[in-house]
Amino acid sequence: MDEPITRMSTEQCWDFLDRHELGRLAYHLLEEVHIVPVNYAVDRDHSGHRTLLFRTAEGSKLIGVVMNADVAFEADEMLDDAATSVIARGRARVLDEVEEHRAENVPLRPWVATPKYNVVEVEITEISGRHFELSRPWEHMIP
Amino acid sequence: MDEPITRMSTEQCWDFLDRHELGRLAYHLLEEVHIVPVNYAVDRDHSGHRTLLFRTAEGSKLIGVVMNADVAFEADEMLDDAATSVIARGRARVLDEVEEHRAENVPLRPWVATPKYNVVEVEITEISGRHFELSRPWEHMIP
Repeated sequence: MDEPITRMSTEQCWDFLDRHELGRLAYHLLEEVHIVPVNYAVDRDHSGHRTLLFRTAEGSKLIGVVMNADVAFEADEMLDDAATSVIARGRARVLDEVEEHRAENVPLRPWVATPKYNVVEVEITEISGRHFELSRPWEHMIP
Repeated sequence: MDEPITRMSTEQCWDFLDRHELGRLAYHLLEEVHIVPVNYAVDRDHSGHRTLLFRTAEGSKLIGVVMNADVAFEADEMLDDAATSVIARGRARVLDEVEEHRAENVPLRPWVATPKYNVVEVEITEISGRHFELSRPWEHMIP
């Protein structure tokens, strides 16, 4: 049987993140873990170094990453016969006003036209991805 | 302008979770926050009380929830003109052998036929959901 799960290279993981815009951010808020969906974009500096950017309004997400920068991020795609999931961990920080313009140069698009004022950058320290060929074994079960 | 974001009732949140099977679990691992995609199912006891179940192999996810039961969970759906996201927080525990059969009675379906040995239950303490009418404001921008 072919291996149904393949590990993606770091480059394949970044390519996947480049091609998507919806992810989920997990962060600490005091002693709790929280998770929220985020629209994100991959930013790239002159040397090709990549980070993730997203916008956020004032709120627990922002307070959480200011108090504890340790975050995890996930983006995935589920098709009929395959699924892909990329997981990253890193350090988040709120960009200062001088840097906020970076969010204008990437396709960082909000779902709705609610104003969002802060830009958060995640410096990625670990990234991994898995691609699943979906056997959906239950569909082949004979009752 | 109509409000583009509507809050879902607790019942609407559970209905959404009932109709989906892929979510993401955020959990503590020592001082870090981690996130993984999970196939889950909603279980219901005789009194109608609902919890989330998922299967997992031995690994960091299992170690994490054994060491710190505090977890967060998210499931979402993105359509062309609307998006929905349900977020929950709760306490996770590994079911003992006597209880594992509960996973047989719910549509808890793995993506691939890799054996997964442990069943984790999440007792939900907070649940909320938001429905977004997607204006995709960038599509209406005149260059």
